[in-house]
Amino acid sequence: MAHGRFVSFEGIDGCGKSTHAARIAKHFEKMGFEVAFVRDPGSTRLSEEIRALLLDPKNSDMARECELLLYEAARAQLVAEVIKPALRRGAWVIADRFFDSTTAYQGGGRAIDAAFIKGANELGSLGVVPDLTFILDLPVEEAARRRGEDSDRIELEGGSFAETVREAYLALAEAEGKRVCVIDASGSEDDTFAQVVEVLRARFGRKRA
Amino acid sequence: MAHGRFVSFEGIDGCGKSTHAARIAKHFEKMGFEVAFVRDPGSTRLSEEIRALLLDPKNSDMARECELLLYEAARAQLVAEVIKPALRRGAWVIADRFFDSTTAYQGGGRAIDAAFIKGANELGSLGVVPDLTFILDLPVEEAARRRGEDSDRIELEGGSFAETVREAYLALAEAEGKRVCVIDASGSEDDTFAQVVEVLRARFGRKRA
Repeated sequence: MAHGRFVSFEGIDGCGKSTHAARIAKHFEKMGFEVAFVRDPGSTRLSEEIRALLLDPKNSDMARECELLLYEAARAQLVAEVIKPALRRGAWVIADRFFDSTTAYQGGGRAIDAAFIKGANELGSLGVVPDLTFILDLPVEEAARRRGEDSDRIELEGGSFAETVREAYLALAEAEGKRVCVIDASGSEDDTFAQVVEVLRARFGRKRA
Repeated sequence: MAHGRFVSFEGIDGCGKSTHAARIAKHFEKMGFEVAFVRDPGSTRLSEEIRALLLDPKNSDMARECELLLYEAARAQLVAEVIKPALRRGAWVIADRFFDSTTAYQGGGRAIDAAFIKGANELGSLGVVPDLTFILDLPVEEAARRRGEDSDRIELEGGSFAETVREAYLALAEAEGKRVCVIDASGSEDDTFAQVVEVLRARFGRKRA
C-alpha cells in the first residue's frame, strides 16, 4: 500500500518556517507529487476556530494547561481530517509546525512538565510522527527584526521567552537527531532553501525530491 | 489551611443532575457556606466558548479525539480559574458534570481507549478529584421522556448511545465505590433530593451538610 511522507517545519516566530514550508510544498507539486500543505494549529474549519481562540489577545488569562490542550485538540482534528487521509493516499504532507512546537513552546517556554507534554502530544497527534522535521534556527534578535511588528498573543511575550523556546528546539534536535534536522537560517532565503532541499534529497533520494 | 469540598453530579442527559446540583448549591448557600456552582464544560468565559464549539451541530465532523481534548481544555481552564481557588478559600464546589462524564461519554459512548481517557482526564483536571460524586441513575427511556426534545449534537445520537453511557457510569461506580455514589433518580424530584442530602450528611457530617 502506498504511504506518503510527512515533513514538518519548526522554529521560533520569524525564522522563516512558513515561507520555506510553502516553497517546499510548491517544489513537490511542480515535480508532480500530491501535496497536502497544512499549518498547525489550523487547516480545517474547526482547527482554525480553535486557532482563533488561541491567538485572541482577549484570552490572555488562558491557563497554560488549557492552552496546551487546545493546541492538541486542533491537531487531533487536523490529523484525523487531513494528514492521515493524505498519507494513506501516498501524498507528501508538508506542515508549518507540528507537535515539536508544543514541546518547545509549552514545554520549554511555559515550563509545563515534560511527561505531561509527551502524553498530550501522543493524544493530539493520534500517533502520527513526521518522517523528517526541520528546525530553522537563528538568533532571536534576528528573528525579531525579520518578523517586524505583530501583535498576536504569543508574540507579545518578548525576547527571553523566544530564547527559551529556541533552546528547547535545539535540545530536541540533540535528543532526536535521526528525525530532527537543524538548518542555519541566518543567511538569505535562497541559501536556507538550498540547504533544506539538499537534506530532503539525501534523506528521500533524488528520485523523490 | 482551610480546604473546601468538591461534589460533582453525573448521569445521562435528562437524569436531573443539573436540577439537583443547583438545589444542593442553594441548600449549602442557605446554610451560610460559600458555594462555587459550576457546569463542566463551561463557567468561565473561555470554557463557555469551548462549550459552544462542542455543542454546535455544524461540528458533527469533529474527530472523537478532538472532542475529548476540547472537553479537557475547557475543564483545565475551569479548574485553574474557578475550582482550585474556591477550594483554597474553603468553599464548597458543586459541579454539574466533571471528568467522569468524559469517562462515560468519550470512553463508554465513543469507545476511546481507557488509558487514553485516563491520561486526558489527569491533564484536564490538573490533578483535582471530587470528594464525592453522585450518579443520578434512571432508565434511558425515562430520561428521554423527561428531557423532551433537544437538538444539540450529543442528544441527537439516540437511545443505544445513552444506554452505553449509562452502563459506563454504573461500571465506574463499581470501580470507585468510595468516591462514586449511585442514586436511584426514577422517583420524584423531592425523593431524589432527599437521598442526595442524606448521603451528604452521612459523608460530611450533620454540622457541615
